[in-house]
Amino acid sequence: MSQAESAAGRDGQGTRFLAEIHEQPDALRRLLGHESVIARAAQLAVERDARLIRLVGHGSSDNAASFGVYAFGLLPRWTAMRDAITLTVHYDTPLDMTGSTVIGLSQSGQTPDVVEYVVRARAAGALTIAVTNDPESELATAAEVAIPLSAEPELAVAATKTYVNTLAVLALLAGHVAGRGPEVSDGIRAAAEQLADVLPSLESAAARMALPFAYTGRMFVIGRGVEFATAREIALKLLETCRIAAEPLTATDLAHGPVAALDPLFPVWAIASDDGTLPTVQEAATRTREMGASLVASGTAAERIKGAAFTVPVPLPEPALLSPLLSVVPGQLFASALARARGLDPDAPHGLAKVTLAQ
Amino acid sequence: MSQAESAAGRDGQGTRFLAEIHEQPDALRRLLGHESVIARAAQLAVERDARLIRLVGHGSSDNAASFGVYAFGLLPRWTAMRDAITLTVHYDTPLDMTGSTVIGLSQSGQTPDVVEYVVRARAAGALTIAVTNDPESELATAAEVAIPLSAEPELAVAATKTYVNTLAVLALLAGHVAGRGPEVSDGIRAAAEQLADVLPSLESAAARMALPFAYTGRMFVIGRGVEFATAREIALKLLETCRIAAEPLTATDLAHGPVAALDPLFPVWAIASDDGTLPTVQEAATRTREMGASLVASGTAAERIKGAAFTVPVPLPEPALLSPLLSVVPGQLFASALARARGLDPDAPHGLAKVTLAQ
Repeated sequence: MSQAESAAGRDGQGTRFLAEIHEQPDALRRLLGHESVIARAAQLAVERDARLIRLVGHGSSDNAASFGVYAFGLLPRWTAMRDAITLTVHYDTPLDMTGSTVIGLSQSGQTPDVVEYVVRARAAGALTIAVTNDPESELATAAEVAIPLSAEPELAVAATKTYVNTLAVLALLAGHVAGRGPEVSDGIRAAAEQLADVLPSLESAAARMALPFAYTGRMFVIGRGVEFATAREIALKLLETCRIAAEPLTATDLAHGPVAALDPLFPVWAIASDDGTLPTVQEAATRTREMGASLVASGTAAERIKGAAFTVPVPLPEPALLSPLLSVVPGQLFASALARARGLDPDAPHGLAKVTLAQ
Repeated sequence: MSQAESAAGRDGQGTRFLAEIHEQPDALRRLLGHESVIARAAQLAVERDARLIRLVGHGSSDNAASFGVYAFGLLPRWTAMRDAITLTVHYDTPLDMTGSTVIGLSQSGQTPDVVEYVVRARAAGALTIAVTNDPESELATAAEVAIPLSAEPELAVAATKTYVNTLAVLALLAGHVAGRGPEVSDGIRAAAEQLADVLPSLESAAARMALPFAYTGRMFVIGRGVEFATAREIALKLLETCRIAAEPLTATDLAHGPVAALDPLFPVWAIASDDGTLPTVQEAATRTREMGASLVASGTAAERIKGAAFTVPVPLPEPALLSPLLSVVPGQLFASALARARGLDPDAPHGLAKVTLAQ
């Protein structure tokens, strides 16, 4: 019996989810074996001067897109956006796509409106890149270039290794566009090591947190900058596996209204990085405590957040832009432990299928 | 005693919030008196060919920005995005802003990072436009052009008339860029009439809904396309005035995980328009009912959503793009009635100030 199976319990519920969390270092290393495809896609974007990046996806893929905005902004200093799929697909609006690189994100490669968006964007002159775990999928076929996530089959409904590998693809793409590909791939290789090293202690920390939150029904997850993607992804894990109404917010938006809803039964999970956003997260943490809400601090600068009930730091990768590869993991492990504590099966949440074909 | 004062109760709690909801038709008409400033700003954007629209704001202003993406996409077919403030302000990343129009949105005109973003974008060559209710504010001074919201002082902490007037400014800007200014201003004038006509019946409908939701702690608010802004804004009203953990989602994203959290005590509010997004909202409504969650349907196509416990339609404006000016109002009125039913004061929610100076 593997470590993951033993931690998930004898009935096998949650085995896959936890096992796939543990597979993430290997999944990252496997992806680096496909770096040449990513470098070629980046080269095409540079050659065509297609420097407005339009990211499209839903769920975890869209959360990864939030990271993509920063990867392209910080490395080649190109503007990237999570584009409005609806405008193109549902409202049939012809937009000028010359000078644009479209990146369609879908684990299954089957998300209908993402496929349709990529088809239309390609016809309108965009460079189109598919990022998917199924290189034979509709999305892979629709795009000019298909980048395989190389995560191997993901069986739990809630995404883990495909999310982290999507982050890595976006960082590598942005790195190669900026002429800094080797630096980013070295960083990912080192981050995979760091993650493998800390996984056992993060799992213990997450297990200790499960019981105190067993009856939590509402939560905010806050981050800013590169870690806003992490806040979104942790909130989604808590929603789908633990049935907590967990809402992601930027640290600053917490103050613009939502803070009023906090009370001692409405905790806040804060993800902190030691960069220019740290004061915004610290200020939001202070306001959280003033409202009597309890606080979880994670991220590479977790220890810089005062007064947290639980502090779960992760190691700082190099470059720091790669922090979200590590900082999402405490949230995944917490979701796994908490789902078990609540008697829920994180492998197969009620009402969900692995491939989402919603319109 | 005015109608609003009487409905809000004798102790005066919630008087301002409700009165300001009722002032919205007048606020819209007042804004139309400032159309020439808006037309001039649009002309500058056209003359400079500054056709990448970067919208920045927090809270209700950022919700209005979600509408701006569609206003610019549908009218002049320009690409608009909610830009990453952090990249510019906190990470100090110099982006190429030539060919960009920046629209800074802040009721108070004092939001620190929005002001700082506009200062930097202007120095980097963007056309900068401030949209604020205080024409003497820092934001108005920082931008090349300042458009007054003309909503008169808003005293309740939760924004209402400044939100609706921000939508109207964005529609007028996009309309003038597209050479369709008069059509949009006529539409806003007519929408103000439609709103004034239906306000009393919407208020009655909202009052009937308050008691059944008195103990609701969690809610999703879904919309798509032009109505995603409405979903975001209604969720924010419920958070800040009623302390409900209300999360906005696109109708499609509901299926990508969050649907698993639904149960009979976790209702969904769906905003439906009779456009290409209607099937996505209908499908999400079906999944909501399958999970046993109760459903509220609003929007111009509310009656096309089957099986709702409450149906609160609003009239269809012309052009249909203006629907969010009307469809947010049932949510505002519901928040007002529900806050009262829960013994909360929507004029001054605990932990909030009118002007948010969070970093």
